[in-house]
This record gives sequence, structure tokens and C-alpha cells, in this order.
Amino acid sequence: MNEFELINHVRSLNETLGSRVVLPPGDDLGGLGFGPGVVVLAGVDQVIGGVHLPVDASPERYARKVICRSLSDVAAMAALPAGALVTAAVPVGLSADWGPRFADALNRIATQYDCPVFGGDVAAFANSAAPPLVTATVLASPDDSMSGRFLTRSGAQPGDEIWVSGFLGGSLRSDGSGHHETFEPRVGLALAIHRLIGESLHSMIDLSDGLVSDVGHLAVESGVKMTLESDSLPRRGAATPAEALSDGEDYELCFTVDPSVELPDCLDEIPLVRIGSVHSGAGVVILEDGVEVDFSSRGWEHRT
Amino acid sequence: MNEFELINHVRSLNETLGSRVVLPPGDDLGGLGFGPGVVVLAGVDQVIGGVHLPVDASPERYARKVICRSLSDVAAMAALPAGALVTAAVPVGLSADWGPRFADALNRIATQYDCPVFGGDVAAFANSAAPPLVTATVLASPDDSMSGRFLTRSGAQPGDEIWVSGFLGGSLRSDGSGHHETFEPRVGLALAIHRLIGESLHSMIDLSDGLVSDVGHLAVESGVKMTLESDSLPRRGAATPAEALSDGEDYELCFTVDPSVELPDCLDEIPLVRIGSVHSGAGVVILEDGVEVDFSSRGWEHRT
Repeated sequence: MNEFELINHVRSLNETLGSRVVLPPGDDLGGLGFGPGVVVLAGVDQVIGGVHLPVDASPERYARKVICRSLSDVAAMAALPAGALVTAAVPVGLSADWGPRFADALNRIATQYDCPVFGGDVAAFANSAAPPLVTATVLASPDDSMSGRFLTRSGAQPGDEIWVSGFLGGSLRSDGSGHHETFEPRVGLALAIHRLIGESLHSMIDLSDGLVSDVGHLAVESGVKMTLESDSLPRRGAATPAEALSDGEDYELCFTVDPSVELPDCLDEIPLVRIGSVHSGAGVVILEDGVEVDFSSRGWEHRT
Repeated sequence: MNEFELINHVRSLNETLGSRVVLPPGDDLGGLGFGPGVVVLAGVDQVIGGVHLPVDASPERYARKVICRSLSDVAAMAALPAGALVTAAVPVGLSADWGPRFADALNRIATQYDCPVFGGDVAAFANSAAPPLVTATVLASPDDSMSGRFLTRSGAQPGDEIWVSGFLGGSLRSDGSGHHETFEPRVGLALAIHRLIGESLHSMIDLSDGLVSDVGHLAVESGVKMTLESDSLPRRGAATPAEALSDGEDYELCFTVDPSVELPDCLDEIPLVRIGSVHSGAGVVILEDGVEVDFSSRGWEHRT
């Protein structure tokens, strides 16, 4: 059973969750009701040495990445960060200053994004060969501008335009200078877009798995076909169109909007670009010079 | 820097957290304000193969333990579970049914305790020698009976009696039959005690590190001296008094109450026993036949 099958299995249990769960597993954050009119959104992400960072990356790199990954999920819902809980499991024998350096870095980053770390847990692996593993749970509030609705993956409609923020591809340099370690979670931008166009913003996701894969989530959840124009993709540095389509960890916003709204080509100094359109049907289609291409035959595979 | 020094370092950052954090790190759960009168309590716990469970324990054992550990923290605050987020990191090559079995077990346990799993994250260790590591974040609500106060570790007062629920010691059998894998989180009991005696319930903690260690937390947080009468300890099975004092993972409640209240010796069919008293001063003192003993010379060491 691969990751997608497991997620589908988890979602098959959604109907058992009861009415307190106002947003079940399947979106960037889940939502829980806390009395009349109060919804708390929350999500959790992991950063594992050897998977998301080099095993021997500094505690500051672990701290930044785990908080910013979770904040990117908050951005995807156009929500406001409220606070975070963090865990760290580190192999026995790791240097004594790893913990305090991690804590100090967390505090700096969390302060910067107004997302205080208000709890957590620390433990040591008995196994000295295990890599550091850190998690961040972020709690968030729906923005008042949402008026009780949620900005999810399931709102895309045929006719919508597909947009992205920033640039895509080539994020995964492992020396600490790669975009996947320097990105700014698009919390402020997501709120700005929503406040600008309101309910014309139909669906949103943050790009972590790679554009085609994440747009595929929008297509599945919304029950639509998504067409991407590979010539339109804003590429990061020397990234090829194929890399912009498939590389992971862009941590940009991908969203669909009513075609009647006009979006600026830059908001909060971040470029916004139209990259495709939404249609009746299913799946993700790539157009190159207006011609549909078989992306899978170009060597792309889903990163699981 | 050991675990306690790290925790103290983290707590030295508490003053930077801002007013949204109504209960900072240092208690069983943290607390975050979500608008007027709404506080969300939350905490996170880890279960690591080779540390908290045998590496090859079944996914059902990982699921039960991680949820129940977090619920024990909810009990310690006499709070109501609202929902949970769960992560799992498993080594590549683990059997394909681990994930769905883990998800199914989580769902069963969470339903039993009315604490639906409304989100999470799954990842694979690149390193096949790494043990499974799972976490559970639990969100909770203060019980209405709290009337805006929190039941913390810092409320013990000189003159208080110290009580525990259930039995202590000998929890850590590794074959799956040990109490640390079969315990019932004392969520209902904690609420029942609070609803019975209200503000006469001064402080509470759940016993995870071991009685002396956890009572030490109450002593430090409350600025008092705690005296334990080793002859009074309710011992589990063949546990010795030393084991009842020092073994970890009892997951029972330890709490202090105003001496004027009368507690029943059983509530919700769970025994309650007075085991000591609170005094001015600092530290934890053990009495054996009324005589103070030097516990450290009996081979006890703090488990970190």
C-alpha cells in the first residue's frame, strides 16, 4: 500500500469522526469545532534527517524547515497562525547543544511568523543510527474574511483559471541554499489574495509534492480536469519546464479563481501568474505550445 | 545539557511568547487563546520504537500507546479531549499493512475516547535501521466546571494532602501485557474528582516519569516540599515500595487537595489513596515508618 492508498484508507474512516470535526483529513489542515462559531484549524508536518534535510544539517535548519512547512499549510487555507507544538527525537550521543540551539531557532522563527511555540516534547532515539526527526503542529484560525467558509482543495470549478505565486522547480539543493530551506511561507500573500477577491478565490493548495501532483489533488478533490500550460510556468533560475512541473517543495500557492476577476501580476511584491484552466472531466493535462503532451512518457513519476 | 536543562532553557523563552499563549510550556498541556473566553489546550507526545515500545511491536500497540499517552496529559489538566493529529515515520521496507492497521487502530481508540483523529502526516525513513516513530497531538477544552481557571502543577499549597489514583510500579513489562500498554487514561476520573471537590483540587499531574520524579515537578512548580509516605503507596502486583516510588509510566493521577475535603476511597471504581502531604520548603522527602530515608542511596536515579 503506497502513501496515496494509505491516505485514501484514512479518508474512508472520515464518516466515523463525528460532528466536532468540521474539516476532516484530506485538506492542508483539519478543522475542529470549539463551541458556537469557533473553529480551530490544525495540521502537522515532519522533517526527517536523510529525507527532508541532510542528516547532519544544523538544528537551525531543522527548526526553520519544520515550522515553515507547517506554516505553508496554514497559508494554503488562507488562515492565521495561532501557535505551534514541536517535537524532536534525536539519536543518543548527538552534541549537547543541539537541543538549545533548536529551541532558540524555533523561538526566533515562530516569533517572526507570530506563531508562538507553546508546547512540545523531546526524546532520544535509543538507536544512535537513527536520524533526527522533528515535527511541528500548527494551530490556526480562519481569517474573518472567510465568513465561515473554508478555502479548500475541493472548490475548483470548470471555467476557473489556475494561478501560482512565485517560481517553480529546482528547489531541492541540499547545501542549505536551496529554496526548500529559504522559502517564506505564503501566509500573508494568501490572506491578501483572499481579501482582494473574496469568494472568487475558489480553491487553493500549497505546492509541496510538485506542481502536477498537487494540481492533481485539486482535480481529484474538486472533481474537475486541470489543464496546465507548460510554456506559462514561472521557472526558478535554471529550472526546466519539466522540473517546474514535477520538482517538489516549491512551497508556493496554487489556486483557482473565477475567470471574471482580474488579478494583479504582483501582490506584496510576489509575482502571480496564470498557468492554466479548469474544465469538466478528470485528471491533469499538460499543454506544450497548445498541444497536449504525455507527461508520464517524459520520465516524470510521482514522488512518494 | 540533559532533558531538564533543555526544558528549563525552553521555559526561559516563555516571556517572549506573547499574550495569545495563556498557558506556556511547563505543564501537561499548553494553552492558546482563540478569542474571548475560548481557550484550546494542546499537547504532543512521541512513541519511539526501542524507547517506549519494542521496535517490532505491532502497529496496534503503537497506535494505542501514543493516543493514550497524550490523553493522560489531557486527564492531568482535568480537560475534555477534542481531537487529535497523528504522525507516523516508519522505516522503508516495513510491511505494507503497517499503515492501514495503524490507521484502523487509531480510529478505534480515538473513537473510544471521543477524540477523533482529524489530521496527520505519514513519512518513511530513508534509513531502514530507524525505528518507527509516531506522535499524537491532542487538542482539548477546559471543562466548564473549571470556570476559567486551569488545573496545573503549580497550585499545591502547604497543608495539602497528596493523593494518587490506582496502583504504582512495575508498569514496564515489554511483552505488551504491561500496564504501560493497557492503562486507561484517567480522563473521566480527573473530571469526576474536579466536579466533586471543585477548587479544593489544587494541583495535578499524570505519573509518567515515576512518582518521585513527577511529585518533584509539583514541588518545583508550586514552590513547596512534598512528603511521601512509602508505606501508604498502593502498589501494583508484586511491585516493591522502591518500584512504586520510581518506576515510570504508571499513567495514574497524582494530585493535591485541601485537607478539609473528604475524598472517597474509590471513584468510578478506581481506588484513590492519600500518600503524603505538602509542606513549606522544597524538594521531595520519603518517609518509611515515619522516618525520613535517603532515597538516592537506595539506588534510585532519575530516569531521563
